[in-house]
Formats: sequence, C-alpha cells, structure tokens
Amino acid sequence: EYARKPRSEQGLDAAPEWPALRPMIPEMANLRVLDLGCGYGWFARWAIGQGAQSVLGIDISERMLARARELTSGEDIEYRQGDLDALDLPVAGFDLVFSSLAFHYVEDLPGMLRQVHAAMAPGGMLVFSQEHPLRTAPSRQGWETLADGRRIWPLDRYLLDGPRNTEWLEASVVKQHRCMATLLNALIGAGFTLAGLQEWGASDEQIAAQPNLAKERDRPTFLLVKARN
Amino acid sequence: EYARKPRSEQGLDAAPEWPALRPMIPEMANLRVLDLGCGYGWFARWAIGQGAQSVLGIDISERMLARARELTSGEDIEYRQGDLDALDLPVAGFDLVFSSLAFHYVEDLPGMLRQVHAAMAPGGMLVFSQEHPLRTAPSRQGWETLADGRRIWPLDRYLLDGPRNTEWLEASVVKQHRCMATLLNALIGAGFTLAGLQEWGASDEQIAAQPNLAKERDRPTFLLVKARN
Repeated sequence: EYARKPRSEQGLDAAPEWPALRPMIPEMANLRVLDLGCGYGWFARWAIGQGAQSVLGIDISERMLARARELTSGEDIEYRQGDLDALDLPVAGFDLVFSSLAFHYVEDLPGMLRQVHAAMAPGGMLVFSQEHPLRTAPSRQGWETLADGRRIWPLDRYLLDGPRNTEWLEASVVKQHRCMATLLNALIGAGFTLAGLQEWGASDEQIAAQPNLAKERDRPTFLLVKARN
Repeated sequence: EYARKPRSEQGLDAAPEWPALRPMIPEMANLRVLDLGCGYGWFARWAIGQGAQSVLGIDISERMLARARELTSGEDIEYRQGDLDALDLPVAGFDLVFSSLAFHYVEDLPGMLRQVHAAMAPGGMLVFSQEHPLRTAPSRQGWETLADGRRIWPLDRYLLDGPRNTEWLEASVVKQHRCMATLLNALIGAGFTLAGLQEWGASDEQIAAQPNLAKERDRPTFLLVKARN
C-alpha cells in the first residue's frame, strides 16, 4: 500500500526532496494552481495555506482522492479523478502547474505537456519532480559492490526510452524511462522555456541524520524541473 | 599525441557524433562564426565552405593552430591562441558560436558562458558538444561486467562536480565533471535559452559497422546542446 509510505502519511515534510523543491515554487498569493497527481492533497492544502486562490487536484486513484477530501476543509480545493494521459483542461486557466513524482507514469509525455502548456495563463510556471532518469534506466535497479569495493549504480539502457518494471511494496509498477534529452526536448517542443533544474542529492544535514543517503550523490533519485510557459 | 586520433587527422567525418551534431547547426550563409577550441580548424573550414562570412578560431595549442594555418587558405578564417577560461571577445560580434569537445576542459564555465553570451549578436546561436556527464562522473571510467553477466557502466560521484583525471594516450588529462543540472543552470544563468539537447548514442548504421558502439546506448559518450542567446 502506497499509504504505508511516510510521505503519504506525513505529507510534504516527509518527502526528502521537498526542501530542494520548495524554493523552485513561486510566490503563491492569488495563484490558480493545478496539481497533477495530487494524491492525498498535501501540496494542494499547502498551496491554499500559502495564499493560492484555488487548486484543482487531479489523480487517477479514487481511493486517494476520497482520503484527500476527508483531510480537506473549505471550498478552495477541487479534487477530480483523471488520467494524466487523457487530460481535459480549460485553456489558460492556471498560473502554476505542480506535479510531484507523477510524470514518470505518463506514457505520452509530449502530448500531456502540450495540454498543460495550453492550460497555463501567460507568465505561468510549471514545477515538477519525477524519478531521475538515472534511477529508472537500468535493467536491474539496485546498488552493486564491485570486487575492488566500489559501491556503484550499474548503469545500462540509459538511452533506451520505454517502460520499466520495478518492484514497489511487493507489487510490480511500470514507470516510463525517458533520458534527459527526451524529457527536456519534450518540454521545449511543447512551448516551455527551461528555467532551472535540480538533480536531487541529499543535503549535508540529511546525510548527517541518515548516513545511507550519502549514495544519493553517486546517483540522484529525483529530478526537479522549473519551466516557464 | 592527440594528432594520432582519427578525428584530428581526418576531420569532421571521423567524428562519430558529427552526423547528430550537424543538424543542430543553423544555415551558415553570411554568419560570423566563433569556434572555441578549434584545434586543426576542421569546423572553421567547413563553415566557410557552407557560406559563413568569417570564422574566428580560438585554441590553447599553438602547435595545433600552426597546423590549422597550414591546412587553411584564404582570409576568412582567423586563428588565435587563447584560453577559454580567459576569453577577450568583441561584444555582439558573432551569430554562431560553436565548440566541439572543449567545454569539459573549462574551469569557470559560468564565467565563460557569460562572456560568450555577451559576444553574441541578437538572434545568435550556441551549438556545442562535450563529454557527457555520465562519461566523466565515475571514480574509475571503464565498463565492468557483473557476476550475472551484465555489462554496466559503474556510476558513482555523479553529483560531485569537479576535476577528473583520465588517461588519454598514455598521458593524464584533467577534465571538469559537471552534472547536467550544473551545466544547464550555467547556460540559463548566463542568459541562454535551451533550444535542444542530444545525448549521443550511435546510429543503427554506426552500430552495424562497429558493433561495439552498441554500448553507447547504455551510457552515452557525448552531450550535444543548442541554445539561443
């Protein structure tokens, strides 16, 4: 169950990449926000707390949306069931589009990004995280130790875009691997201007608290992207 | 000796990434071109052959520049000795800035890119290749075979920007490793707009002719970038 994971139970502060992602998000006052893959609505509620005018949260899981609605009070957030591969959005309706760890499930990313671009108002911003392509690329996703003691990430298949089966809490989950060029060219092709990129490695403080996060600097887990429309 | 390498002896057609890089280069007619790290001048002469108005080629090696001058006739190309870390360029003097496999030697890339940006005329374009960060990252740069038979690239230290010592024709060469985010954020910070990216893997034709190029798709060697000023 995804709900067993701390980030779902405890919200944004349980997401190790949040301290890096938050500074990429613009001032929220009066923004109309779209949250793609909103899950339990942690970001949606945070956005309203930061002064956003409204949030539309979209997720494919009715079960997660039901829980999101339980956790939410007020009228400023609408949760809607939807598939990111089949979005139906109003034109120029949003000032900020946010997405946390959902784009690597999207099959037709260029198509989705064109939809998102059309749904953004002039001056709008897209901020998203996804699994880093270095994480999704390999034929077997796990650290290895070589004979000489080096702990390495066994990279292969990096340029071979396509689905990857990964084990997730005893179930198999399909993620879409896209190399960096495929991803960034899809953004550019949809009309976005790249404004900034982060490849998430743990902060010094995080490594001090959790030493095994040090290997994130050998191979980052998350990619954080900011783009203008 | 670098001159022993086919790409230096035989020019652009001996560079396996050239078929991918060439389509990223704009129409050359009447362009004022700057070639950073011009070596023997293969690109400079090609540019003039394509109708460029002039080329300024800069390289740190007087020996390579002497050979470049021997290979060149006509007045349209100027070769000048210079360090990419200490450029002194005219403002708005160039329509196209090109660089092949030189930026990974530059120590202060943000500083160099600001210089280059100021040297470009409105509507100008920057097109460059460099070693891919996945190539330069590891503590030991060589393919490994795991116990189960997987041939992998032993990735570590990806986020640790800084110098890397690599062996090159029996000499040790220092290259500057920069992760993708560092590189692209330096471009954005200097005022460029990213226009396209390629992570070079061999074409089907190249792999048919040289089967050992197939592993380029597991870990690309070259990064090709196009940006507008």
